[in-house]
Amino acid sequence: MEAAILVKCDRVWMNARLATMAGPGLGVVEDGIVAVHGGNIAYAGPRRQAPDFAAVETVDCAGRWITPGLIDCHTHLVYAGNRAQEFELRLAGASYEEIARAGGGIVSTVAATRAASEAELVASALPRLDALIAEGVTTIEIKSGYGLSLDAERRMLRAARRLADERAVGVTTTFLGAHALPPEFAGNADGYIDTVVHEMIPALAAEGLADAVDAFCESIGFTPAQTRRVFEAARRAGLPVKLHAEQLSNRHGAALAAGFGALSADHLEWLDDAGVAAMAGSGTVATLLPGAFYFTRESRVPPIEALRGAGVPMALATDSNPGTSPMTSLLLAMNMGATLFRMTVEECLLGITRHSALALGLGHRIGTLEAGKACDLAIWDIETPAELVYRIGFNPLHARIRRGQ
Amino acid sequence: MEAAILVKCDRVWMNARLATMAGPGLGVVEDGIVAVHGGNIAYAGPRRQAPDFAAVETVDCAGRWITPGLIDCHTHLVYAGNRAQEFELRLAGASYEEIARAGGGIVSTVAATRAASEAELVASALPRLDALIAEGVTTIEIKSGYGLSLDAERRMLRAARRLADERAVGVTTTFLGAHALPPEFAGNADGYIDTVVHEMIPALAAEGLADAVDAFCESIGFTPAQTRRVFEAARRAGLPVKLHAEQLSNRHGAALAAGFGALSADHLEWLDDAGVAAMAGSGTVATLLPGAFYFTRESRVPPIEALRGAGVPMALATDSNPGTSPMTSLLLAMNMGATLFRMTVEECLLGITRHSALALGLGHRIGTLEAGKACDLAIWDIETPAELVYRIGFNPLHARIRRGQ
Ligand SMILES: [Zn+2]
Ligand SMILES: [Zn+2]
Repeated sequence: MEAAILVKCDRVWMNARLATMAGPGLGVVEDGIVAVHGGNIAYAGPRRQAPDFAAVETVDCAGRWITPGLIDCHTHLVYAGNRAQEFELRLAGASYEEIARAGGGIVSTVAATRAASEAELVASALPRLDALIAEGVTTIEIKSGYGLSLDAERRMLRAARRLADERAVGVTTTFLGAHALPPEFAGNADGYIDTVVHEMIPALAAEGLADAVDAFCESIGFTPAQTRRVFEAARRAGLPVKLHAEQLSNRHGAALAAGFGALSADHLEWLDDAGVAAMAGSGTVATLLPGAFYFTRESRVPPIEALRGAGVPMALATDSNPGTSPMTSLLLAMNMGATLFRMTVEECLLGITRHSALALGLGHRIGTLEAGKACDLAIWDIETPAELVYRIGFNPLHARIRRGQ
Repeated sequence: MEAAILVKCDRVWMNARLATMAGPGLGVVEDGIVAVHGGNIAYAGPRRQAPDFAAVETVDCAGRWITPGLIDCHTHLVYAGNRAQEFELRLAGASYEEIARAGGGIVSTVAATRAASEAELVASALPRLDALIAEGVTTIEIKSGYGLSLDAERRMLRAARRLADERAVGVTTTFLGAHALPPEFAGNADGYIDTVVHEMIPALAAEGLADAVDAFCESIGFTPAQTRRVFEAARRAGLPVKLHAEQLSNRHGAALAAGFGALSADHLEWLDDAGVAAMAGSGTVATLLPGAFYFTRESRVPPIEALRGAGVPMALATDSNPGTSPMTSLLLAMNMGATLFRMTVEECLLGITRHSALALGLGHRIGTLEAGKACDLAIWDIETPAELVYRIGFNPLHARIRRGQ
């Protein structure tokens, strides 16, 4: 008779089916257990191969599925104002000018955000964050970009950081000063980029408020040359970069971003083969945003087959924002990824876990169920993981675990 | 000094903004109150014009909006089986034959539904019903049509009726025997229609299990001549009719239905001007189902402008079903009605209240906030009703009231 060696842990989830996302495919384990110790996964895998745990608490999952906690890697969740009325006017046939006169468009969000206090920004973002959390989201990226001045951008980023205190959720922040041209710099985009590059990025990086730097490289945004200056400033500040690229036209932004080792290039409806190859070479994630595609009624879909063929990891995110994607459901983003972009179930599920972790530079900490990673879990009342992609407007979340709690 | 005359009631909601849906437009009342007595609305309107109520209970709505409880007027909510895997296979490139071999398609739902007990049908439908209820739905229509035999159709309809006992929700049932041809009648559609007409409709009507009769008039469903026979049987049984019409092709089904004074014709992507005129003449509601349009990736939208111009009331519904619209969000159906079909905010909101009530023949009882109607309310944390249409995957419901409770 051998003496059993018991491994101490805080909690064990038994009798679960796992989609570890650690491969191959979804990493399915039929009779699985997850053990947590000190907030990290001590074990995730088949029961038969597990050590004997002496757990403070044991949870019987009754055959439910466990996935990694979901990761929404592209949002503009923090802003003030309400653009529902603009939506209403547009449907009623109002012209662009009429909407602008009625105070619509991104300038209305900028004005409202500039006028809001940090506490007001936090309060208005919380219901949106809660909607994401209710679906199992445990990590979210939040961009600035509606302040467009050092003070207002700082306030947005502080509000984003505060959300992580208000809720049990991981928040990564991205400075998106180069989102739009503020009215006081009309006709002087280069002058605004000077401010972004020489003032905003150094200050916000020094204050530890930004985990990455992003820009909107587009005819209605900033030029590739201006984007390059932003990226160079980010590099000097030691921050990784991301890019809104190829959403409305091909500006070769993804290749530019790849040249800076960007974590991700996002949108990508107009991405060409050279852009795909550049991303594949740099390990840049393709973050696809079908909610914006749907809401703005685009017809050109991102080159999914080319990305798939080149082995570029694809992430999916809500792009939650008031103008082009007022969406707060990552499950629905998956359904749209499948329905509108013809991504497979596996691609969709990896896109909100493993690959969205990569898009945040957090592949070593989250995104899969593997020993050593943070114990962020979503436990589901489903028969098969495909249900998470297939259903529309249905939330089968049974429980959400953040850092083992 | 005058003596105040106090009107007794059970409950009053004060300090609310109302969208009564009683016209004009949304029937907006800025400083409104709703009073209920005996489950019916005693008063809904401006506070200043209200009598003095002696209420057993008073609720301060703190400026929240009240709409009628939502009405989902077209669902196939009761069924067994799970077609998420079929969805997964299709995205992975499986052919129609491969999916059929893997047990997919409507025949799989029919087989699973036939094999399920009434209790199993109730249990599997409840999570879907709960998702709708969580968004403020107080009345739902549920169709049979996956049984395709008298016994199995009866079991589906009983399960639908049972759902109204399990939850505080109104359920209207629709017999949809002419949904698909059961395998035992392969090659003999007229023979199956004989059964529908001579056995099923008389029996189910006599048992009080069906509130209406529906059919699927389509190349892959039943012919106009067969549909007419179903309608004639419904008329003999004293039941109103509805029709799945003009979804995939123009079979002139809407005009046929209008000739029978149909409550609604549903889908209507291929509806022509003559169909619009016939519906306008008969008061038949156009029930639009953007979830199915979205999920099946159709490109032809229903003739919204023609319907609008002819004054045909437009309803919106989820069409919740496992094959072509696995959707359980009526709010999302509104967003799709606006985004994909370019319906206005007002049309969308009327489409899930006043007009969906008409589509069920219940315009006298529900769908607007008017004295004498059932006190079914949805109370919302929103700034403007347009938000209910604008947001994607966000549920701002504060409280749901069914029959005053
Ligand atoms: Zn964005
Ligand atoms: Zn239907």
